[in-house]
Amino acid sequence: MRVGELSKRSGVPVPTIKYYLREGLLPAGVLTSPNQAHYDDEHLRRLRLVRALVDVGDLSIAAVRDVLAALDTRDDTLHKKLGLVQEAISQPGTGELDPLAVEDVLAFFRRQGEECADVTDSNVTHMLATALSAARSVGHDHFRELLDPYLEGLKIIAQADVDYIATRGSTDDIVEGMVVGTLIGDAVIKAVRRLAHAQVSRKVLSDGPED
Amino acid sequence: MRVGELSKRSGVPVPTIKYYLREGLLPAGVLTSPNQAHYDDEHLRRLRLVRALVDVGDLSIAAVRDVLAALDTRDDTLHKKLGLVQEAISQPGTGELDPLAVEDVLAFFRRQGEECADVTDSNVTHMLATALSAARSVGHDHFRELLDPYLEGLKIIAQADVDYIATRGSTDDIVEGMVVGTLIGDAVIKAVRRLAHAQVSRKVLSDGPED
Repeated sequence: MRVGELSKRSGVPVPTIKYYLREGLLPAGVLTSPNQAHYDDEHLRRLRLVRALVDVGDLSIAAVRDVLAALDTRDDTLHKKLGLVQEAISQPGTGELDPLAVEDVLAFFRRQGEECADVTDSNVTHMLATALSAARSVGHDHFRELLDPYLEGLKIIAQADVDYIATRGSTDDIVEGMVVGTLIGDAVIKAVRRLAHAQVSRKVLSDGPED
Repeated sequence: MRVGELSKRSGVPVPTIKYYLREGLLPAGVLTSPNQAHYDDEHLRRLRLVRALVDVGDLSIAAVRDVLAALDTRDDTLHKKLGLVQEAISQPGTGELDPLAVEDVLAFFRRQGEECADVTDSNVTHMLATALSAARSVGHDHFRELLDPYLEGLKIIAQADVDYIATRGSTDDIVEGMVVGTLIGDAVIKAVRRLAHAQVSRKVLSDGPED
């Protein structure tokens, strides 16, 4: 297909596609004449992935380049590649770390049989330790007890997420689905969690007749 | 107790307590002499709640005043009060609404037997419709299919949240627990979800030997 159709099928404007080509985020098309290049479905998939990383993941062009380089490494498993991308689209926590909260996170990871030597080694563990530190700072030391039931509920959600992307054929499509599913999913989960709260609280906490 | 002990037991500095007193967020203590007031456990509970709303919920002083007024209304059930507070600590979505995403949200609420006439009526439904609109804008129309499994997982989490706060005695304590649990819980869920992804993906998606 020509660049116009690539734009139409991806929803990405032609000038943006040309910018991605110049920045090396999209491989050049095959020249069919001095002024015309031909693009295929590989380009379309890569373009959708780049757009997800930039628009949904809010990644810089340099960070997108790093992610693509990791994906294009042949040796790693898909699982490992997804882990790298997940780390790239996650923000570390901001705020002070309470040593007791750090210990809570390490104990949680040990219970799960997961390796974690230092919570600052990854954005995910750092985010978790920061949140538990914030809970401790307002006197909620027992918040750590929620980690196990949270993980139980989140495994159901993760299974749905993996089912959602696992039918996709190419690595680019799977990674694109993971970026969208992880980041837009965070917002969806935040909202649906409030509905779940309302449903459970209606059963448990109502202390008078409903109107 | 005197203001110094109130400060010590709550972790809130004396000048901040005095500011809350001036703003009417904390009822005045009982004067035991012209210069000395006495505070009780009610004050301590209210102070912790105000701090959670300000520090964790990031609410303005005016918004805190509204929340407290709602809590101090005698007629409503606790369930209804929690709903009001939940709405106060939630942000509406930002971004354009896609009419098809709005229809997805309304259909989801109908399936759940929940009332929702207009997604912009509440911050929670607006947040959800905005997130699904963002998914549609990058070609993920089927994201709506994740809503039901997400709710299933989030009910487990909501049950843990309600158990966490239900043992608390007073309405102020329950509401304080809900504010902390909802907002700090959002960050914890975000992090633990990534661990759950890694665990599920390791089982399902590994396409080669792990190192």
